[in-house]
Amino acid sequence: MKDSFSLNQVRSLYPALANKTYFNYGGQGVLSHQVLAQISENFAHIESLGSFSIAANNWITEETRLLKEAIATEFNTKPETIALTENTTHGCNIALWSFNWQQGDRLLISDCEHPSILAIAKALISRFGIEIDYFPVFANESDAVAISTIQKCLKPQTRMIMFSHVCWNTGQVLPLAEIVKVCHSHHVLVAIDAAQSVGVLPLDLPSLEVDFYAFTGHKWWNGALGVGGLYINSKILETLEPTFAGWRSLVYNFPEIKWRHDAQKFEVASSTYPLYGALRTAISEGNAFGIQRERYNRICELSKYLWEALQNIPNIICVKKEPPLCGLVSFEIANSSHTQISQYLETKHKILVRSIPHPDCLRVSLQYLSTEDDINLLLEILKTL
Amino acid sequence: MKDSFSLNQVRSLYPALANKTYFNYGGQGVLSHQVLAQISENFAHIESLGSFSIAANNWITEETRLLKEAIATEFNTKPETIALTENTTHGCNIALWSFNWQQGDRLLISDCEHPSILAIAKALISRFGIEIDYFPVFANESDAVAISTIQKCLKPQTRMIMFSHVCWNTGQVLPLAEIVKVCHSHHVLVAIDAAQSVGVLPLDLPSLEVDFYAFTGHKWWNGALGVGGLYINSKILETLEPTFAGWRSLVYNFPEIKWRHDAQKFEVASSTYPLYGALRTAISEGNAFGIQRERYNRICELSKYLWEALQNIPNIICVKKEPPLCGLVSFEIANSSHTQISQYLETKHKILVRSIPHPDCLRVSLQYLSTEDDINLLLEILKTL
Repeated sequence: MKDSFSLNQVRSLYPALANKTYFNYGGQGVLSHQVLAQISENFAHIESLGSFSIAANNWITEETRLLKEAIATEFNTKPETIALTENTTHGCNIALWSFNWQQGDRLLISDCEHPSILAIAKALISRFGIEIDYFPVFANESDAVAISTIQKCLKPQTRMIMFSHVCWNTGQVLPLAEIVKVCHSHHVLVAIDAAQSVGVLPLDLPSLEVDFYAFTGHKWWNGALGVGGLYINSKILETLEPTFAGWRSLVYNFPEIKWRHDAQKFEVASSTYPLYGALRTAISEGNAFGIQRERYNRICELSKYLWEALQNIPNIICVKKEPPLCGLVSFEIANSSHTQISQYLETKHKILVRSIPHPDCLRVSLQYLSTEDDINLLLEILKTL
Repeated sequence: MKDSFSLNQVRSLYPALANKTYFNYGGQGVLSHQVLAQISENFAHIESLGSFSIAANNWITEETRLLKEAIATEFNTKPETIALTENTTHGCNIALWSFNWQQGDRLLISDCEHPSILAIAKALISRFGIEIDYFPVFANESDAVAISTIQKCLKPQTRMIMFSHVCWNTGQVLPLAEIVKVCHSHHVLVAIDAAQSVGVLPLDLPSLEVDFYAFTGHKWWNGALGVGGLYINSKILETLEPTFAGWRSLVYNFPEIKWRHDAQKFEVASSTYPLYGALRTAISEGNAFGIQRERYNRICELSKYLWEALQNIPNIICVKKEPPLCGLVSFEIANSSHTQISQYLETKHKILVRSIPHPDCLRVSLQYLSTEDDINLLLEILKTL
């Protein structure tokens, strides 16, 4: 772990950390001075080139290539397996809609998914007459229980499973590699909501053999809002066709149009390209702090520190019975409105912690940029409630 | 029309106009100094509030409300009919996928649509087994011919028609109100690619009775890349369900989820909110120059000026036989590679004009910010080719 002097130096690079105590990395990360400057510079650079020009097009092509390369490196995969999207949910839509659903097919999801996944499921039910099964994710179950629970929930009509690698509400980390093995043995595709795992867990996506892995740049990677992506396993890529499509999906030789052969066939049209380099910078700033494994270890140490301290505060019950293996620490305060406490912490103490509707709790996100001092400040106030 | 002194004052607000001759507004517009500054300020403001916080959420909610209000005002409609998207193509996808297509249903499109529309049609053919009919859009046909041509192409199985209000390649403006009447009398939905009409034509969408109108902020409105929208006729809004969906589509009262009742049900998840205010500023900068009717008149005068001058250059043939009623002037140069001429103009003369594959031509976009001097410069060089 960095010593507190160098940690403070790193933290001073992020304006958001100067005037508040920030615990909402799972909602959105923080932009560094360098990232903010790069966004402004990139917008100005495009104007200087001429926004629609051969020069700007070459610049955009190169920015896109470099960003996919940077993302692919983090996942130990090839850039061809990455489609850029606006956010995690967009990637989840691409994955869930890519299957050629027929009436009576079944989709298996966990009972802890984000409302966005429930929205997509609702749309699929309405359009194709599919049915949804739910598998329970108890915050405190063992990997073995999770795997056998999923196995029991697979039906002959189950075509796809979708769940969060790290549950957004409880911080439970699911044993992905083992679940993939079980599902693939039943010919069930595996799609992952990776909103809370990318930028937290060390990842080697090809070795996990997962089919779809949907993520965003603006949470744990500290990139700007509006750039995310979807990893698609190269084994299934060629067989899939886009739902939403556009010029970016195509190899276009007038009058012939064909789908591209790489994951870009799931991209649609123009995006906010000035943010691409900003995400690349944000990823490299993270790597300058430490490789993902080191940052993950630090995140887990901080989560454990908070979790252990919370055990000693009367009226507080952690959702997990052991320290979370990610950056999310969720807990209930007895006889309290967690929404009101979140408001109180923000308005009275400039401490940003979110409330969650189910399980009804507060959720603290700890990033490698978080400090024990931050946590101690939060603990002091929690003791007074 | 503004006198040249005040026009130069207005043009000096746009850094892109300082170092080149820009004729690609139909590809992408130009950002003012004020818009560029606002983008930077908004990104910094969110960091100052805490990107994921009650304060930031309130700010985003208000920015979203104000942008929808500004867009709705331009269209003489209500904000509830506007869904925000990433670009025009995204809106076209929402429109085309919103219909509950059955095998054998038919979609009617023009033979001048952008490759993005062909991509969406390809996806729908593959998924639902629908069939596509094409109606010819000759650059020089009269409104009466266009309407009767479409009427002849409607079949009993035709469910929807999609075409560009202003053709991206020829600059033909189609008689939308009359086409809507014909199509609705056959119970055919009308979806419009408005990439080249929004920010050019004065528009009253409710009176046109069009069903879907998909647009972007980054072309003729001079907003930043990554913010567009879709207008949906309030008469059909309640009956439609989203394809791609997410938390923004929902009224969420755990555990109950319902679709929203306004056009926001077609929005998915997080976007680059700092750009919303920038688009609002860009729209108001346009209105400070003159209302849309005045800007449209100026655009048409400039198009006429160029079109008439081109008649006198040997070897140049305009695609349209009369001055275009929009900002797009397309023309062929005999025995030339239009791609190479576009490259030559950009690299040797800093004049930005795009080439089009079909019809094989050059396309000049004229905005109210364009000048006769700009046009004269282009004409001088064209005469030397």
